[in-house]
Amino acid sequence: MPEPLDVPHHPGPAAGLGPPPAAPVPAPLLPGFPEVFDRSGTGSVKWAQAGAEQDPGRIPMGVADMDLPGFPGVFRALRERAAHPVLGYTLPAPDGDALVVAWYRERFGARIDPRWVVRLPFGPRSAIRFVLDALPGGGPVLAPAPEYPGFEQVVTAAGAEYQAVPLERHSSGRGYRLPVEEFEARAAGTGARAIVLSSPHNPTGRVWSAPEVRRLAAAAAGAGAVLIADEVHSDLVHPGHEHPVAVDAAGPELAEHTVTVHSVGKTFNVSGLADTVVLVPSAELRGRLVRAVEGHGFFAGSRVLAALAQDVALAHGLGWRDQLVEYLVGNRDLALEVLSVVPGLVASEPQASYLLWLDGSALPADPEHRPLPGRLLDACGIDLQDGARFGPEGAGFLRLNFALPRPRLREAVERLARYASQRSGQHTVPRRQRQA
Amino acid sequence: MPEPLDVPHHPGPAAGLGPPPAAPVPAPLLPGFPEVFDRSGTGSVKWAQAGAEQDPGRIPMGVADMDLPGFPGVFRALRERAAHPVLGYTLPAPDGDALVVAWYRERFGARIDPRWVVRLPFGPRSAIRFVLDALPGGGPVLAPAPEYPGFEQVVTAAGAEYQAVPLERHSSGRGYRLPVEEFEARAAGTGARAIVLSSPHNPTGRVWSAPEVRRLAAAAAGAGAVLIADEVHSDLVHPGHEHPVAVDAAGPELAEHTVTVHSVGKTFNVSGLADTVVLVPSAELRGRLVRAVEGHGFFAGSRVLAALAQDVALAHGLGWRDQLVEYLVGNRDLALEVLSVVPGLVASEPQASYLLWLDGSALPADPEHRPLPGRLLDACGIDLQDGARFGPEGAGFLRLNFALPRPRLREAVERLARYASQRSGQHTVPRRQRQA
Repeated sequence: MPEPLDVPHHPGPAAGLGPPPAAPVPAPLLPGFPEVFDRSGTGSVKWAQAGAEQDPGRIPMGVADMDLPGFPGVFRALRERAAHPVLGYTLPAPDGDALVVAWYRERFGARIDPRWVVRLPFGPRSAIRFVLDALPGGGPVLAPAPEYPGFEQVVTAAGAEYQAVPLERHSSGRGYRLPVEEFEARAAGTGARAIVLSSPHNPTGRVWSAPEVRRLAAAAAGAGAVLIADEVHSDLVHPGHEHPVAVDAAGPELAEHTVTVHSVGKTFNVSGLADTVVLVPSAELRGRLVRAVEGHGFFAGSRVLAALAQDVALAHGLGWRDQLVEYLVGNRDLALEVLSVVPGLVASEPQASYLLWLDGSALPADPEHRPLPGRLLDACGIDLQDGARFGPEGAGFLRLNFALPRPRLREAVERLARYASQRSGQHTVPRRQRQA
Repeated sequence: MPEPLDVPHHPGPAAGLGPPPAAPVPAPLLPGFPEVFDRSGTGSVKWAQAGAEQDPGRIPMGVADMDLPGFPGVFRALRERAAHPVLGYTLPAPDGDALVVAWYRERFGARIDPRWVVRLPFGPRSAIRFVLDALPGGGPVLAPAPEYPGFEQVVTAAGAEYQAVPLERHSSGRGYRLPVEEFEARAAGTGARAIVLSSPHNPTGRVWSAPEVRRLAAAAAGAGAVLIADEVHSDLVHPGHEHPVAVDAAGPELAEHTVTVHSVGKTFNVSGLADTVVLVPSAELRGRLVRAVEGHGFFAGSRVLAALAQDVALAHGLGWRDQLVEYLVGNRDLALEVLSVVPGLVASEPQASYLLWLDGSALPADPEHRPLPGRLLDACGIDLQDGARFGPEGAGFLRLNFALPRPRLREAVERLARYASQRSGQHTVPRRQRQA
């Protein structure tokens, strides 16, 4: 009979936790990253949405995973584990919680109590739903807008009212500000059950500040609610910015009013496999969460390979992450440079992740009023995410995923810049080409 | 953004669906099965419960997975898939539903409408919880006793009353009978929400008959309820017995009152990875089930390796399954022969699976009244499952898992027979040894 989520761990050596990877991926542009990358035949949602298998000229830049290889150490560990011919009921490796604590210490300088760690055998969106179900309050759930749409989906399914609090756009037009005062007022006025927040922010790539996060936690605490921070992009914060881990930014007095959600899925490119790590300082809430999850028949032994991927990533992936972020920042700079010829197109300069938020009003008007993403796919062969999926405040915007091999990214943003330059008949060419 | 559960499938070739496996496992006793099998270092729950890593003399026979290698084709496909360095958001392979339909046709001669097929990214116990949540009724849930304890766990967590209906023991003392009349009376009298049934039965290994299953479906239908048949052991039915697929046994008129739950986990020894297949003929119930699952943040692209394992097993595993069952039947016969020297010990001759239900009252009495499993672990070094975990009707019984390499199984049952023979000071040796 499988064990519940909180059983002691197996006594043997940690399966598959081998040494860190050594072999580079072929044809690197930077170490470890190739100049071309093929996901055809793997069932990629991103490629399918773009129609990129049927038409190799199309460039998928929608769904939030990377057209770059993930951390080789994870994939080697998976192959090694699958060399043993049983994937039965399996206890998590003994040091899984310690790996989480060490990751938070080394990556963020945050001190995490190992008792807070709950490792769940499904993705972050499901984890947030179970947290919501475990919360006692019946009030609305507040979230910024635009925002990752998975929040509204699970909040509504949980029977709670979803209240969007619009982000404030900087007067410069480049970036957004968290309307902390509005959250404070609404939380106090509505008897909110929770505030949910993607931090760093999806889709704008903003890194919220520690004081902002702390004030949201205080606003939640004042309403007897919790701040749920979805930090799945936090390992992709760019140099020059510092990610505030929710529980750490809140500090000891407010910690029990935070729930910090994390996953190795985005950083290590295993979102189709990843488990979720949740930090829940409140023992009462943690107990309710674990009971809700177990009451749905989940147990710790149910995802041997996902747990292995997480453990290997946390144990050995820090250096590789640094390389990845360096590469992504190079991509970011390339995209910003090429697109700078289109005034007003970049709505938010990314401070984290591989997402670029674009203002479609900077693009040529379409007499037929076709939706922007389809128009760009037809005109430029690039598939971007429709900003309207992130709430009404995202309508007219586009989310561009720049986690591509750099030559392919250059091709994509140059196509976009050329298309944008058709505005008012200008036919501007990108700056790089003008300089050449 | 990941796709919902019911999206169309990806257009590329089915990832990893290579040719059926050719290479045999080393040191076979029967083709493909070794004489020794080591799970140390893999975190096996079964081995951990037995303490088998610290003490190699202990023989784990508890948790329901096999100490035998799973289908090599699955493990090869997993290794091949992990050679591609992205496990991102991934659509299920295009022919997954068709593979399910073909499996039911070839294995059971059952005609399954592909529209009934719901493939879920988690295990059968969770699937049953979501089915329960999707059912409209508020009445109790009926189940046989003894029964797989996961049912009571999720029924209770779903807020429903769990009513156990005791199985009838055959007067021979060898086997159980399904008390269909009692289910009929209770379903009609209580306004039941559902009847749940493991079919074949866990823990007794009984194969229920098609008329029995049909009558339970009729009893459910009469109460406006559904019969939920957990058929995760159905691919391990022994020759001479025929498994009634619930929806097929129910027939067209009652089909909408059945939910058939299946998984490749048990047969192919990938329970730590497996998805669940659910057949839901009622379009209304199916819609509610899919919405409940999606409302918990699950989507079809969230378990790329589990879906791959399922597809490869269904596409290529039928012949290997036949070999496996032949081997398990040989193990069954060995266990029954050796244990036949202990009158009354075998409570149910298995007709399916690798589970043997033993009556502890046939064992020597213990003046200290220690629990049976601990006593046997001390005395014989064999770790069996406590029958009390299957409900009060299982108290005093034991579940023995005979999916072991045959020499190891012989060792285990001979130890048990020697221990049992101490009763009344007889010191009987097993029949095989007497014949030798």
